[in-house]
Amino acid sequence: MSRIAYVNGRYVPHHAAGVHVEDRGYQFADGVYEVFTIERGRLVDVPAHHNRLMRSLGELGIASPMAPGALDVILHEVVRRNRLQRGIVYLQVTRGVSPRNHVFPDDVEPSVVVTARRGGRPSSENQDNGVTVITVPDIRWGRCDIKSVSLLPNILAKQAAREANAYEAWQVDSDGMVTEGASSNAWIVDTDGNLVTRPLANAILGGITRLVLKQLAEEQGIRVIERPFSVAEAMAAREAFVTSATSFVTPVVQIDDRVIANGKPGSTTTRLITLYGNHVRNAQLTKT
Amino acid sequence: MSRIAYVNGRYVPHHAAGVHVEDRGYQFADGVYEVFTIERGRLVDVPAHHNRLMRSLGELGIASPMAPGALDVILHEVVRRNRLQRGIVYLQVTRGVSPRNHVFPDDVEPSVVVTARRGGRPSSENQDNGVTVITVPDIRWGRCDIKSVSLLPNILAKQAAREANAYEAWQVDSDGMVTEGASSNAWIVDTDGNLVTRPLANAILGGITRLVLKQLAEEQGIRVIERPFSVAEAMAAREAFVTSATSFVTPVVQIDDRVIANGKPGSTTTRLITLYGNHVRNAQLTKT
Repeated sequence: MSRIAYVNGRYVPHHAAGVHVEDRGYQFADGVYEVFTIERGRLVDVPAHHNRLMRSLGELGIASPMAPGALDVILHEVVRRNRLQRGIVYLQVTRGVSPRNHVFPDDVEPSVVVTARRGGRPSSENQDNGVTVITVPDIRWGRCDIKSVSLLPNILAKQAAREANAYEAWQVDSDGMVTEGASSNAWIVDTDGNLVTRPLANAILGGITRLVLKQLAEEQGIRVIERPFSVAEAMAAREAFVTSATSFVTPVVQIDDRVIANGKPGSTTTRLITLYGNHVRNAQLTKT
Repeated sequence: MSRIAYVNGRYVPHHAAGVHVEDRGYQFADGVYEVFTIERGRLVDVPAHHNRLMRSLGELGIASPMAPGALDVILHEVVRRNRLQRGIVYLQVTRGVSPRNHVFPDDVEPSVVVTARRGGRPSSENQDNGVTVITVPDIRWGRCDIKSVSLLPNILAKQAAREANAYEAWQVDSDGMVTEGASSNAWIVDTDGNLVTRPLANAILGGITRLVLKQLAEEQGIRVIERPFSVAEAMAAREAFVTSATSFVTPVVQIDDRVIANGKPGSTTTRLITLYGNHVRNAQLTKT
Protein backbone atom coordinates (compact mmCIF):
# COMPACT_ATOMS: atom_id res chain seq x y z
CA MET A 1 0.00 0.00 0.00
CA SER A 2 1.40 3.39 -0.90
CA ARG A 3 1.57 5.98 1.83
CA ILE A 4 -0.67 9.03 1.74
CA ALA A 5 0.15 12.52 2.97
CA TYR A 6 -2.00 15.60 3.42
CA VAL A 7 -0.65 18.82 1.92
CA ASN A 8 -2.62 22.06 1.95
CA GLY A 9 -6.07 20.65 1.37
CA ARG A 10 -5.22 17.55 -0.65
CA TYR A 11 -4.47 13.93 0.13
CA VAL A 12 -1.57 12.93 -2.10
CA PRO A 13 0.81 9.99 -2.47
CA HIS A 14 3.67 10.45 -0.02
CA HIS A 15 6.27 10.57 -2.79
CA ALA A 16 4.39 13.46 -4.40
CA ALA A 17 3.97 15.46 -1.19
CA GLY A 18 5.62 18.74 -2.05
CA VAL A 19 5.66 22.34 -0.94
CA HIS A 20 6.79 25.43 -2.80
CA VAL A 21 10.42 26.47 -2.42
CA GLU A 22 9.16 29.82 -1.11
CA ASP A 23 7.23 28.18 1.68
CA ARG A 24 8.62 30.07 4.67
CA GLY A 25 9.19 26.79 6.42
CA TYR A 26 11.85 26.02 3.83
CA GLN A 27 13.55 29.41 3.65
CA PHE A 28 13.20 30.68 7.23
CA ALA A 29 12.32 27.71 9.49
CA ASP A 30 9.15 29.73 9.99
CA GLY A 31 6.89 26.98 11.21
CA VAL A 32 5.98 24.59 14.00
CA TYR A 33 5.21 20.91 14.30
CA GLU A 34 3.75 18.14 16.42
CA VAL A 35 4.40 14.40 16.51
CA PHE A 36 1.45 12.26 17.60
CA THR A 37 1.68 8.68 18.79
CA ILE A 38 -0.84 6.39 17.07
CA GLU A 39 -2.10 3.37 18.98
CA ARG A 40 -4.79 1.07 17.60
CA GLY A 41 -5.51 3.68 14.95
CA ARG A 42 -6.12 6.41 17.52
CA LEU A 43 -4.13 9.55 18.22
CA VAL A 44 -2.82 9.73 21.78
CA ASP A 45 -3.18 12.85 23.96
CA VAL A 46 -4.75 14.96 21.24
CA PRO A 47 -5.94 17.86 23.45
CA ALA A 48 -2.48 18.39 24.91
CA HIS A 49 -0.92 18.43 21.43
CA HIS A 50 -3.55 20.90 20.23
CA ASN A 51 -2.87 23.18 23.17
CA ARG A 52 0.83 23.15 22.49
CA LEU A 53 0.35 23.67 18.77
CA MET A 54 -1.88 26.68 19.37
CA ARG A 55 0.65 28.11 21.82
CA SER A 56 3.55 27.66 19.36
CA LEU A 57 1.56 29.30 16.57
CA GLY A 58 0.52 32.14 18.85
CA GLU A 59 4.07 32.83 20.01
CA LEU A 60 5.17 33.16 16.39
CA GLY A 61 2.12 35.14 15.28
CA ILE A 62 1.15 32.45 12.77
CA ALA A 63 -2.58 32.23 12.17
CA SER A 64 -4.22 28.99 13.22
CA PRO A 65 -4.91 27.23 9.91
CA MET A 66 -8.23 25.79 11.08
CA ALA A 67 -10.24 24.89 14.15
CA PRO A 68 -8.93 21.97 16.24
CA GLY A 69 -11.92 19.90 15.18
CA ALA A 70 -11.15 20.35 11.48
CA LEU A 71 -7.52 19.50 12.11
CA ASP A 72 -8.59 16.38 13.99
CA VAL A 73 -10.57 15.25 10.97
CA ILE A 74 -7.49 15.56 8.77
CA LEU A 75 -5.21 13.81 11.27
CA HIS A 76 -7.61 10.89 11.59
CA GLU A 77 -8.15 10.75 7.83
CA VAL A 78 -4.40 10.46 7.27
CA VAL A 79 -4.29 7.66 9.83
CA ARG A 80 -7.23 5.94 8.12
CA ARG A 81 -5.89 6.29 4.59
CA ASN A 82 -2.56 4.85 5.71
CA ARG A 83 -4.33 2.04 7.59
CA LEU A 84 -2.08 2.90 10.49
CA GLN A 85 -2.61 0.99 13.70
CA ARG A 86 0.66 1.79 15.47
CA GLY A 87 2.98 4.55 14.46
CA ILE A 88 3.30 8.29 14.40
CA VAL A 89 1.66 11.18 12.62
CA TYR A 90 3.74 14.25 11.88
CA LEU A 91 1.99 17.61 11.55
CA GLN A 92 3.78 20.73 10.32
CA VAL A 93 2.25 24.19 10.06
CA THR A 94 4.23 27.04 8.51
CA ARG A 95 3.44 30.69 7.96
CA GLY A 96 2.81 29.96 4.29
CA VAL A 97 4.20 30.71 0.85
CA SER A 98 5.31 34.22 -0.01
CA PRO A 99 8.13 35.90 -1.96
CA ARG A 100 11.21 35.73 0.25
CA ASN A 101 11.27 38.60 2.74
CA HIS A 102 12.07 38.40 6.44
CA VAL A 103 9.03 40.46 7.45
CA PHE A 104 5.78 38.53 7.93
CA PRO A 105 3.73 38.60 4.72
CA ASP A 106 0.18 39.90 4.72
CA ASP A 107 -2.77 37.76 3.71
CA VAL A 108 -0.94 34.48 3.43
CA GLU A 109 -2.52 31.13 4.25
CA PRO A 110 -0.58 28.86 6.60
CA SER A 111 0.75 25.68 5.04
CA VAL A 112 -0.39 22.43 6.61
CA VAL A 113 1.39 19.13 6.02
CA VAL A 114 0.53 15.80 7.65
CA THR A 115 2.50 12.60 7.13
CA ALA A 116 2.24 9.23 8.79
CA ARG A 117 4.45 6.23 9.23
CA ARG A 118 4.65 2.97 11.10
CA GLY A 119 7.10 2.57 13.94
CA GLY A 120 8.19 5.51 16.04
CA ARG A 121 8.24 3.29 19.14
CA PRO A 122 11.14 2.74 21.55
CA SER A 123 12.87 -0.58 20.95
CA SER A 124 12.38 -3.19 23.62
CA GLU A 125 16.16 -3.51 23.76
CA ASN A 126 16.50 0.16 24.72
CA GLN A 127 13.72 -0.04 27.26
CA ASP A 128 15.04 -3.28 28.77
CA ASN A 129 18.73 -2.40 28.89
CA GLY A 130 18.76 1.39 28.87
CA VAL A 131 20.74 3.73 26.68
CA THR A 132 23.78 5.99 26.81
CA VAL A 133 23.55 9.76 26.49
CA ILE A 134 26.36 12.19 25.88
CA THR A 135 26.46 15.79 27.06
CA VAL A 136 26.97 18.73 24.70
CA PRO A 137 26.82 22.50 25.20
CA ASP A 138 23.33 23.88 24.63
CA ILE A 139 23.84 26.32 21.76
CA ARG A 140 20.17 26.74 20.85
CA TRP A 141 18.24 29.97 20.62
CA GLY A 142 16.36 31.61 23.46
CA ARG A 143 12.88 30.27 22.67
CA CYS A 144 13.18 26.50 22.87
CA ASP A 145 9.70 26.48 24.41
CA ILE A 146 8.30 27.02 20.90
CA LYS A 147 8.07 23.72 19.01
CA SER A 148 9.50 25.21 15.83
CA VAL A 149 11.22 23.51 12.92
CA SER A 150 14.31 25.58 13.69
CA LEU A 151 16.05 22.36 14.68
CA LEU A 152 19.55 22.72 13.29
CA PRO A 153 21.30 22.68 16.70
CA ASN A 154 19.16 19.70 17.70
CA ILE A 155 20.19 17.62 14.70
CA LEU A 156 23.84 18.53 15.24
CA ALA A 157 23.54 17.37 18.86
CA LYS A 158 21.78 14.18 17.81
CA GLN A 159 24.42 13.50 15.18
CA ALA A 160 27.14 13.98 17.82
CA ALA A 161 25.34 11.37 19.92
CA ARG A 162 25.16 8.97 17.00
CA GLU A 163 28.85 9.39 16.27
CA ALA A 164 29.56 8.55 19.93
CA ASN A 165 27.34 5.46 19.65
CA ALA A 166 24.92 7.10 22.06
CA TYR A 167 21.14 7.32 21.91
CA GLU A 168 20.71 10.95 22.80
CA ALA A 169 22.62 14.15 23.60
CA TRP A 170 21.77 16.04 26.76
CA GLN A 171 22.28 19.72 26.21
CA VAL A 172 23.95 21.62 29.03
CA ASP A 173 23.53 25.34 29.72
CA SER A 174 26.28 27.77 30.67
CA ASP A 175 25.69 27.00 34.36
CA GLY A 176 26.40 23.31 33.85
CA MET A 177 22.73 22.38 34.18
CA VAL A 178 21.04 19.94 31.82
CA THR A 179 18.33 21.60 29.73
CA GLU A 180 16.96 18.65 27.72
CA GLY A 181 17.87 16.13 25.07
CA ALA A 182 18.05 16.89 21.35
CA SER A 183 14.58 15.39 20.93
CA SER A 184 13.50 14.38 24.44
CA ASN A 185 13.15 15.68 27.98
CA ALA A 186 15.69 14.64 30.60
CA TRP A 187 14.84 13.22 34.03
CA ILE A 188 16.65 11.79 37.03
CA VAL A 189 15.50 9.95 40.13
CA ASP A 190 17.00 11.42 43.29
CA THR A 191 18.15 9.51 46.37
CA ASP A 192 14.68 9.86 47.91
CA GLY A 193 13.04 8.31 44.86
CA ASN A 194 11.59 11.61 43.63
CA LEU A 195 11.55 12.42 39.93
CA VAL A 196 13.51 15.53 39.00
CA THR A 197 13.13 17.35 35.70
CA ARG A 198 13.78 20.87 34.54
CA PRO A 199 10.88 23.31 34.96
CA LEU A 200 9.14 24.72 31.92
CA ALA A 201 10.65 27.98 30.69
CA ASN A 202 12.18 29.31 27.49
CA ALA A 203 15.09 26.85 27.78
CA ILE A 204 13.12 23.67 27.12
CA LEU A 205 10.20 22.35 25.16
CA GLY A 206 7.19 21.31 27.18
CA GLY A 207 7.03 17.70 26.08
CA ILE A 208 3.60 16.08 26.04
CA THR A 209 5.10 12.81 27.28
CA ARG A 210 6.75 14.85 30.05
CA LEU A 211 3.40 16.40 30.93
CA VAL A 212 1.52 13.12 30.90
CA LEU A 213 4.18 11.20 32.81
CA LYS A 214 4.22 13.87 35.52
CA GLN A 215 0.47 13.40 35.98
CA LEU A 216 0.72 9.61 35.91
CA ALA A 217 3.53 9.61 38.45
CA GLU A 218 1.76 11.96 40.81
CA GLU A 219 -1.39 9.87 40.61
CA GLN A 220 0.75 6.98 41.87
CA GLY A 221 2.13 9.02 44.74
CA ILE A 222 5.53 9.54 43.12
CA ARG A 223 6.72 13.06 43.80
CA VAL A 224 7.87 15.13 40.82
CA ILE A 225 10.23 18.02 41.55
CA GLU A 226 10.68 20.54 38.77
CA ARG A 227 14.12 22.07 39.14
CA PRO A 228 17.30 22.19 37.06
CA PHE A 229 19.88 19.49 37.74
CA SER A 230 23.55 19.42 36.88
CA VAL A 231 25.48 16.86 34.86
CA ALA A 232 27.34 15.87 38.01
CA GLU A 233 24.08 15.30 39.86
CA ALA A 234 22.72 13.23 37.00
CA MET A 235 25.85 11.10 36.94
CA ALA A 236 25.43 10.43 40.66
CA ALA A 237 21.65 9.90 40.47
CA ARG A 238 19.89 6.71 41.43
CA GLU A 239 18.29 6.50 37.98
CA ALA A 240 17.93 8.59 34.84
CA PHE A 241 15.66 8.47 31.82
CA VAL A 242 14.32 10.40 28.85
CA THR A 243 10.79 10.96 27.60
CA SER A 244 9.39 11.81 24.17
CA ALA A 245 6.62 10.81 21.78
CA THR A 246 8.93 8.25 20.17
CA SER A 247 11.09 7.29 23.18
CA PHE A 248 8.14 6.97 25.60
CA VAL A 249 10.08 6.38 28.83
CA THR A 250 13.57 5.14 27.98
CA PRO A 251 16.09 4.44 30.77
CA VAL A 252 19.49 6.12 30.68
CA VAL A 253 22.23 3.92 32.14
CA GLN A 254 25.30 5.91 31.11
CA ILE A 255 26.10 9.62 30.75
CA ASP A 256 29.28 10.26 28.79
CA ASP A 257 31.77 7.79 30.32
CA ARG A 258 29.95 7.50 33.62
CA VAL A 259 27.73 4.50 34.32
CA ILE A 260 24.60 5.37 36.34
CA ALA A 261 24.14 3.32 39.52
CA ASN A 262 24.61 -0.36 38.61
CA GLY A 263 24.28 0.24 34.88
CA LYS A 264 20.79 -1.24 34.64
CA PRO A 265 17.39 0.45 34.43
CA GLY A 266 16.16 1.19 37.95
CA SER A 267 12.91 0.16 39.58
CA THR A 268 11.28 3.58 39.39
CA THR A 269 12.03 3.95 35.70
CA THR A 270 10.75 0.44 35.03
CA ARG A 271 7.54 1.31 36.84
CA LEU A 272 7.16 4.48 34.78
CA ILE A 273 7.68 2.53 31.54
CA THR A 274 4.73 0.36 32.53
CA LEU A 275 2.61 3.33 33.60
CA TYR A 276 3.21 5.19 30.36
CA GLY A 277 2.79 2.05 28.25
CA ASN A 278 -0.61 1.49 29.85
CA HIS A 279 -1.53 5.11 29.20
CA VAL A 280 -0.80 4.70 25.49
CA ARG A 281 -2.64 1.40 25.27
CA ASN A 282 -5.66 3.01 26.93
CA ALA A 283 -5.51 6.05 24.69
CA GLN A 284 -8.98 5.57 23.28
CA LEU A 285 -10.37 5.74 26.78
CA THR A 286 -8.52 8.86 27.80
CA LYS A 287 -8.74 11.02 24.73
CA THR A 288 -11.54 13.55 24.45
CA MET B 1 7.72 36.49 -19.09
CA SER B 2 7.25 33.80 -16.47
CA ARG B 3 10.01 33.33 -13.96
CA ILE B 4 12.17 30.22 -14.00
CA ALA B 5 13.69 28.45 -11.02
CA TYR B 6 16.21 25.65 -10.77
CA VAL B 7 15.30 22.72 -8.53
CA ASN B 8 17.45 19.62 -8.24
CA GLY B 9 18.60 19.36 -11.82
CA ARG B 10 15.63 20.90 -13.61
CA TYR B 11 14.67 24.37 -14.75
CA VAL B 12 11.00 24.81 -13.90
CA PRO B 13 8.43 27.61 -13.86
CA HIS B 14 8.76 29.48 -10.58
CA HIS B 15 5.20 28.65 -9.53
CA ALA B 16 5.97 24.95 -9.93
CA ALA B 17 9.24 25.04 -8.01
CA GLY B 18 8.64 22.53 -5.25
CA VAL B 19 10.55 20.34 -2.85
CA HIS B 20 9.44 17.27 -0.96
CA VAL B 21 7.93 17.79 2.49
CA GLU B 22 10.68 15.53 3.84
CA ASP B 23 13.41 17.73 2.48
CA ARG B 24 15.43 18.34 5.63
CA GLY B 25 15.42 22.04 4.89
CA TYR B 26 11.68 22.02 5.54
CA GLN B 27 11.60 19.81 8.63
CA PHE B 28 14.90 20.68 10.35
CA ALA B 29 16.20 23.96 8.85
CA ASP B 30 19.05 21.70 7.75
CA GLY B 31 20.43 23.83 4.95
CA VAL B 32 22.33 26.93 3.95
CA TYR B 33 21.86 29.72 1.45
CA GLU B 34 23.46 32.60 -0.42
CA VAL B 35 22.01 35.75 -1.95
CA PHE B 36 23.88 37.12 -4.97
CA THR B 37 23.54 40.63 -6.35
CA ILE B 38 23.00 40.69 -10.12
CA GLU B 39 24.23 43.71 -12.05
CA ARG B 40 24.04 43.92 -15.84
CA GLY B 41 23.27 40.22 -15.85
CA ARG B 42 26.40 39.34 -13.93
CA LEU B 43 26.76 37.87 -10.44
CA VAL B 44 28.74 40.10 -8.10
CA ASP B 45 31.53 38.75 -5.87
CA VAL B 46 31.05 35.15 -6.86
CA PRO B 47 34.30 33.75 -5.39
CA ALA B 48 33.55 35.21 -1.96
CA HIS B 49 30.05 33.72 -2.01
CA HIS B 50 31.43 30.35 -3.06
CA ASN B 51 33.95 30.41 -0.24
CA ARG B 52 31.27 31.18 2.30
CA LEU B 53 28.90 28.57 0.89
CA MET B 54 31.59 25.89 1.07
CA ARG B 55 32.40 26.91 4.65
CA SER B 56 28.73 26.78 5.71
CA LEU B 57 28.28 23.35 4.12
CA GLY B 58 31.46 22.10 5.71
CA GLU B 59 30.50 23.27 9.19
CA LEU B 60 27.22 21.35 8.92
CA GLY B 61 28.75 18.29 7.30
CA ILE B 62 26.61 18.68 4.19
CA ALA B 63 28.27 17.38 1.05
CA SER B 64 29.01 19.97 -1.59
CA PRO B 65 26.38 19.31 -4.27
CA MET B 66 28.73 20.07 -7.15
CA ALA B 67 31.95 21.84 -8.06
CA PRO B 68 31.88 25.66 -7.93
CA GLY B 69 32.17 25.78 -11.70
CA ALA B 70 29.09 23.63 -12.20
CA LEU B 71 27.18 25.73 -9.70
CA ASP B 72 28.26 28.86 -11.57
CA VAL B 73 26.79 27.47 -14.75
CA ILE B 74 23.43 26.96 -13.03
CA LEU B 75 23.45 30.38 -11.40
CA HIS B 76 24.20 32.08 -14.69
CA GLU B 77 21.63 29.97 -16.52
CA VAL B 78 18.95 31.04 -14.05
CA VAL B 79 19.95 34.66 -14.61
CA ARG B 80 19.85 34.16 -18.37
CA ARG B 81 16.51 32.33 -18.42
CA ASN B 82 14.97 35.10 -16.32
CA ARG B 83 16.55 37.77 -18.53
CA LEU B 84 17.70 39.37 -15.31
CA GLN B 85 19.83 42.49 -15.62
CA ARG B 86 19.52 43.84 -12.09
CA GLY B 87 18.24 41.83 -9.18
CA ILE B 88 19.17 38.99 -6.91
CA VAL B 89 19.67 35.29 -7.19
CA TYR B 90 18.85 33.12 -4.18
CA LEU B 91 20.65 29.79 -3.77
CA GLN B 92 19.66 27.23 -1.14
CA VAL B 93 21.40 23.93 -0.48
CA THR B 94 19.96 21.47 2.04
CA ARG B 95 21.14 18.08 3.24
CA GLY B 96 18.50 16.46 1.06
CA VAL B 97 15.32 14.40 1.29
CA SER B 98 15.09 11.55 3.76
CA PRO B 99 12.50 10.04 6.12
CA ARG B 100 12.33 12.33 9.14
CA ASN B 101 15.05 11.48 11.66
CA HIS B 102 17.32 13.92 13.46
CA VAL B 103 20.48 11.94 12.66
CA PHE B 104 22.15 12.71 9.32
CA PRO B 105 20.92 10.27 6.67
CA ASP B 106 23.38 8.16 4.71
CA ASP B 107 23.67 8.35 0.96
CA VAL B 108 21.42 11.31 0.41
CA GLU B 109 21.92 13.87 -2.34
CA PRO B 110 21.87 17.53 -1.28
CA SER B 111 18.93 19.54 -2.58
CA VAL B 112 19.79 22.59 -4.69
CA VAL B 113 17.31 25.37 -5.36
CA VAL B 114 18.00 28.59 -7.26
CA THR B 115 15.48 31.40 -7.72
CA ALA B 116 15.84 34.86 -9.18
CA ARG B 117 13.97 38.11 -9.02
CA ARG B 118 14.26 41.74 -9.99
CA GLY B 119 14.83 44.35 -7.34
CA GLY B 120 16.71 43.58 -4.16
CA ARG B 121 18.34 47.02 -4.22
CA PRO B 122 18.31 49.65 -1.47
CA SER B 123 15.82 52.42 -2.20
CA SER B 124 17.30 55.79 -3.06
CA GLU B 125 15.12 57.26 -0.32
CA ASN B 126 16.77 55.05 2.28
CA GLN B 127 20.25 55.75 0.96
CA ASP B 128 19.62 59.50 0.72
CA ASN B 129 17.84 60.00 4.03
CA GLY B 130 18.98 57.07 6.13
CA VAL B 131 16.91 54.64 8.14
CA THR B 132 15.93 53.88 11.72
CA VAL B 133 17.00 50.71 13.51
CA ILE B 134 15.65 49.33 16.75
CA THR B 135 17.58 47.22 19.23
CA VAL B 136 16.43 43.80 20.38
CA PRO B 137 18.04 41.11 22.53
CA ASP B 138 20.06 38.66 20.45
CA ILE B 139 18.34 35.33 21.15
CA ARG B 140 19.92 33.41 18.28
CA TRP B 141 21.87 30.18 18.52
CA GLY B 142 25.60 29.89 19.02
CA ARG B 143 26.60 29.43 15.37
CA CYS B 144 25.43 32.56 13.59
CA ASP B 145 28.60 32.34 11.51
CA ILE B 146 26.93 29.57 9.50
CA LYS B 147 24.64 31.02 6.83
CA SER B 148 21.87 28.55 7.60
CA VAL B 149 18.14 28.78 6.93
CA SER B 150 17.58 28.54 10.68
CA LEU B 151 16.32 32.14 10.56
CA LEU B 152 13.36 32.15 12.91
CA PRO B 153 14.88 34.60 15.42
CA ASN B 154 15.96 36.81 12.53
CA ILE B 155 12.47 37.08 11.10
CA LEU B 156 11.04 37.79 14.54
CA ALA B 157 13.58 40.59 14.98
CA LYS B 158 12.84 41.95 11.51
CA GLN B 159 9.12 41.84 12.19
CA ALA B 160 9.66 43.75 15.45
CA ALA B 161 11.50 46.38 13.40
CA ARG B 162 8.68 46.58 10.90
CA GLU B 163 6.10 46.98 13.65
CA ALA B 164 8.18 49.87 15.04
CA ASN B 165 8.32 51.43 11.56
CA ALA B 166 12.04 50.75 11.51
CA TYR B 167 14.19 49.33 8.71
CA GLU B 168 16.22 46.88 10.70
CA ALA B 169 16.70 45.42 14.18
CA TRP B 170 20.16 45.44 15.72
CA GLN B 171 20.59 42.43 17.93
CA VAL B 172 22.33 43.02 21.24
CA ASP B 173 24.24 40.40 23.21
CA SER B 174 24.11 39.87 26.98
CA ASP B 175 27.01 42.32 27.42
CA GLY B 176 25.06 45.11 25.73
CA MET B 177 27.15 44.91 22.58
CA VAL B 178 25.61 44.97 19.11
CA THR B 179 26.11 41.73 17.22
CA GLU B 180 24.47 42.47 13.87
CA GLY B 181 21.17 43.25 12.20
CA ALA B 182 18.51 40.65 11.45
CA SER B 183 19.74 40.54 7.84
CA SER B 184 22.70 42.92 7.72
CA ASN B 185 25.96 43.76 9.43
CA ALA B 186 26.15 46.79 11.74
CA TRP B 187 28.80 49.54 11.53
CA ILE B 188 29.56 52.85 13.17
CA VAL B 189 32.00 55.64 12.38
CA ASP B 190 33.96 56.71 15.47
CA THR B 191 35.03 60.24 16.38
CA ASP B 192 38.32 59.77 14.50
CA GLY B 193 36.50 58.76 11.32
CA ASN B 194 37.40 55.09 11.61
CA LEU B 195 34.90 52.40 10.69
CA VAL B 196 34.02 50.07 13.56
CA THR B 197 32.31 46.72 13.08
CA ARG B 198 32.15 43.56 15.12
CA PRO B 199 34.90 41.00 14.42
CA LEU B 200 34.06 37.69 12.79
CA ALA B 201 33.25 34.95 15.29
CA ASN B 202 30.36 32.62 16.04
CA ALA B 203 28.12 35.56 16.98
CA ILE B 204 27.79 37.08 13.50
CA LEU B 205 27.61 36.13 9.88
CA GLY B 206 30.55 37.12 7.75
CA GLY B 207 28.72 39.29 5.25
CA ILE B 208 30.17 39.47 1.76
CA THR B 209 29.22 43.14 1.54
CA ARG B 210 30.97 43.61 4.90
CA LEU B 211 34.07 41.86 3.53
CA VAL B 212 34.13 43.82 0.28
CA LEU B 213 33.44 47.17 1.93
CA LYS B 214 36.28 46.59 4.38
CA GLN B 215 38.63 46.07 1.46
CA LEU B 216 37.29 49.05 -0.47
CA ALA B 217 37.57 51.32 2.57
CA GLU B 218 41.10 50.26 3.36
CA GLU B 219 42.13 50.81 -0.25
CA GLN B 220 40.95 54.40 0.24
CA GLY B 221 42.93 54.83 3.43
CA ILE B 222 39.90 54.56 5.70
CA ARG B 223 40.81 52.58 8.78
CA VAL B 224 38.54 49.66 9.73
CA ILE B 225 38.61 48.56 13.37
CA GLU B 226 37.04 45.20 14.09
CA ARG B 227 35.79 45.26 17.67
CA PRO B 228 32.42 44.98 19.41
CA PHE B 229 30.61 48.25 20.08
CA SER B 230 27.79 48.95 22.53
CA VAL B 231 24.37 50.39 21.83
CA ALA B 232 25.35 53.48 23.83
CA GLU B 233 28.47 53.95 21.71
CA ALA B 234 26.46 53.57 18.53
CA MET B 235 23.94 56.16 19.70
CA ALA B 236 26.78 58.58 20.33
CA ALA B 237 28.66 57.72 17.14
CA ARG B 238 29.43 60.20 14.39
CA GLU B 239 27.69 57.98 11.83
CA ALA B 240 26.18 54.52 11.59
CA PHE B 241 25.19 52.25 8.73
CA VAL B 242 24.32 48.69 7.73
CA THR B 243 25.59 46.49 4.91
CA SER B 244 24.09 43.51 3.11
CA ALA B 245 23.59 42.12 -0.39
CA THR B 246 20.24 43.93 -0.61
CA SER B 247 20.96 47.01 1.56
CA PHE B 248 24.39 47.67 0.01
CA VAL B 249 25.52 50.51 2.31
CA THR B 250 22.47 52.06 3.98
CA PRO B 251 22.89 54.93 6.47
CA VAL B 252 21.38 54.61 9.94
CA VAL B 253 20.21 57.96 11.31
CA GLN B 254 18.29 56.80 14.35
CA ILE B 255 18.69 53.96 16.87
CA ASP B 256 15.55 53.34 18.93
CA ASP B 257 14.51 56.86 19.99
CA ARG B 258 17.96 58.37 19.65
CA VAL B 259 18.85 60.40 16.57
CA ILE B 260 22.45 59.88 15.40
CA ALA B 261 24.48 63.10 15.05
CA ASN B 262 22.39 65.59 13.05
CA GLY B 263 19.96 62.96 11.81
CA LYS B 264 21.34 62.92 8.28
CA PRO B 265 23.68 60.44 6.57
CA GLY B 266 27.27 61.44 7.30
CA SER B 267 30.06 62.16 4.86
CA THR B 268 31.92 58.89 5.44
CA THR B 269 28.81 56.78 4.90
CA THR B 270 27.97 58.75 1.77
CA ARG B 271 31.46 58.10 0.45
CA LEU B 272 31.11 54.39 1.18
CA ILE B 273 27.77 54.29 -0.65
CA THR B 274 29.55 55.60 -3.73
CA LEU B 275 32.50 53.24 -3.31
CA TYR B 276 30.29 50.19 -2.99
CA GLY B 277 27.98 51.33 -5.78
CA ASN B 278 30.98 51.62 -8.09
CA HIS B 279 32.13 48.17 -7.03
CA VAL B 280 28.77 46.65 -8.01
CA ARG B 281 28.67 48.54 -11.31
CA ASN B 282 32.16 47.28 -12.12
CA ALA B 283 31.33 43.72 -11.10
CA GLN B 284 32.13 42.26 -14.49
CA LEU B 285 35.65 43.63 -14.19
CA THR B 286 36.30 42.34 -10.70
CA LYS B 287 34.80 38.89 -10.78
CA THR B 288 37.00 35.96 -11.64
